[in-house]
Amino acid sequence: MKKIIAMLSLAVTTCLTSLHVAADDKVYRWRLAESWPSNFEIFGDASQRLADNVKKMSNGRLVISIDSTNKHKAALGIFDFVQSGQYQMGYSASYYWKGKDVNTLFFTTMPFGMIAAEQYAWYYYGGGQELAKKVYDQYGILSYPGGNTGNQMGGWFKKEIKTVEDLQGLKMRIPGFAGEVFAKLGAKPINIPAGELYTALERNTIDALEWVGPSLDLNLGFHKIAPYYYTGWHEPATELQFMVNKKAFAELPQDLQVILETAIRESAFNMTAHSYHASAVNLAILQTQFPNVQLKTFPPVVMTALKKANNDLIQELESKGGLTAEIIQSQREYLKKSRAWTIISDKVYLDNQ
Amino acid sequence: MKKIIAMLSLAVTTCLTSLHVAADDKVYRWRLAESWPSNFEIFGDASQRLADNVKKMSNGRLVISIDSTNKHKAALGIFDFVQSGQYQMGYSASYYWKGKDVNTLFFTTMPFGMIAAEQYAWYYYGGGQELAKKVYDQYGILSYPGGNTGNQMGGWFKKEIKTVEDLQGLKMRIPGFAGEVFAKLGAKPINIPAGELYTALERNTIDALEWVGPSLDLNLGFHKIAPYYYTGWHEPATELQFMVNKKAFAELPQDLQVILETAIRESAFNMTAHSYHASAVNLAILQTQFPNVQLKTFPPVVMTALKKANNDLIQELESKGGLTAEIIQSQREYLKKSRAWTIISDKVYLDNQ
Repeated sequence: MKKIIAMLSLAVTTCLTSLHVAADDKVYRWRLAESWPSNFEIFGDASQRLADNVKKMSNGRLVISIDSTNKHKAALGIFDFVQSGQYQMGYSASYYWKGKDVNTLFFTTMPFGMIAAEQYAWYYYGGGQELAKKVYDQYGILSYPGGNTGNQMGGWFKKEIKTVEDLQGLKMRIPGFAGEVFAKLGAKPINIPAGELYTALERNTIDALEWVGPSLDLNLGFHKIAPYYYTGWHEPATELQFMVNKKAFAELPQDLQVILETAIRESAFNMTAHSYHASAVNLAILQTQFPNVQLKTFPPVVMTALKKANNDLIQELESKGGLTAEIIQSQREYLKKSRAWTIISDKVYLDNQ
Repeated sequence: MKKIIAMLSLAVTTCLTSLHVAADDKVYRWRLAESWPSNFEIFGDASQRLADNVKKMSNGRLVISIDSTNKHKAALGIFDFVQSGQYQMGYSASYYWKGKDVNTLFFTTMPFGMIAAEQYAWYYYGGGQELAKKVYDQYGILSYPGGNTGNQMGGWFKKEIKTVEDLQGLKMRIPGFAGEVFAKLGAKPINIPAGELYTALERNTIDALEWVGPSLDLNLGFHKIAPYYYTGWHEPATELQFMVNKKAFAELPQDLQVILETAIRESAFNMTAHSYHASAVNLAILQTQFPNVQLKTFPPVVMTALKKANNDLIQELESKGGLTAEIIQSQREYLKKSRAWTIISDKVYLDNQ
């Protein structure tokens, strides 16, 4: 009998030694809702990469299953899903929530704002992360950068834009603050999810649209129905967004919290490189296989009007004071400082090639 | 008695249930040797961040302790440490090993080569990673990007460079391929570790040096002894390098392998944002607090000579054929494709601000 007890005790002791390695043996089954259709290239790869990495790193203790719009049917409902806890996670873009809270605008990209390298430096080291926390804490949501598409193209137009008057009454899919800037010049901006864009443009529900850039635009086929492809001014560094329900996060043991946050950041950075690659490859295809596509930059008169409209709208927002003004001022100061470096480094370099 | 046995059995069963969560309860104690002195800003933060994250994610099952040059005294001996297994990991830069194998040159940065966004796209999606594997597999080493300093400044010079003749006999700390390009124009390049740079410049052991850029140069004080600060041409996207001994890696259970690789990539990307931030902040300090510092770009006649020397040397290397030619051709093609995108996106955008 003593021998049995001794053996069992040894077994228990061994177990207790091994127990320290896992803070918690519970399996957490999470659901993530994203704003794109199933198997959506690049964006869909990023959330899948996140889920795969988390599962492997946690030895199957944190399992994230992904629902696309094919399943949940609410591309622009991700914020609500995560806030309510219906989904523990979301993958979308912060500026889609500007109707709920204007301060969410600033964490995707701003017209005439920072390029990707500048914006990442601002977010992680220049105070951006702390400001995002102030905005999203109110909703019980943790917000994380979700990968950058790079500088977005100004969009596909059926007619050439030669003057500011050409924007009058123009129906265009263009979300975020850029939509408001366009509206100030007389255009009619709307937001339409990715899955419905082609049909809207084809049926003239809209006259123009911007989606992302060569990386994703090519496979959506816009070049077949709108030949003018404009360079960007309005989304110099579009950052997607991972969202996590704060309560669900707090229930995770610490190791899974760090695993999740590290995997989110890794997946986001990786998507940024993936987007750059796809843009380079698809731009070459557009230029060699579709000679009908005309790459254009808005004429100076239009750019000047856009800049003025943008400044006026920013000033209006800033006059509200509070957190809105705090974010605007933080971004303005950081843009100035980081742009000086961009000019001395990459810009001077590119100018001298 | 039955009750005791039942209780113990329950305890053992519970333990066994929890055991499945950790593939292996062994604690792996690894050592990392890095090329910089203790508490070296940015670079030192990146390796520490890696070690901290790995420890937390693994619940203490993988512990990495870091030795700086203060301890191991061999800034340029990291490759040997990792190859021999004396250290399981290293943190350094691939181009330091060009004397061992010329093909290691290409995984840091190349003169007149890709900028950071282009190079990351090439590495992760354009074939770079596979080529690095071909090079490092021969030495039993796994090589990973270790974070990008961004476009490096051309360096600190005691005398202004007005003509190619001014490079004749110039003793300069400049490693990698850029050193060879300078040598072709008559300069005397050498590599000196970070910890010895200031003294070498102060005592005229060297006439000029390049280290990184405002991010790290400011605190090393070069601006006090060399007033001319040139913009870059030679290291447009300097990527550091994490190295792992292949045999040690193979001994890790799969979850720790994924934890390590994810943490390496996250730490590298994070260091890239950190560097950009520090460059922006320190450039502002240099420009406001040190009016003696003169920002310069090499005159066109010098740039043209540098480009020609670079092309000649690349051509020489390419003529060796084999893996060297394969890497050169991969980078040349990718530069062309990704640069077209850079120009249409960030460059056109910056030109129109």
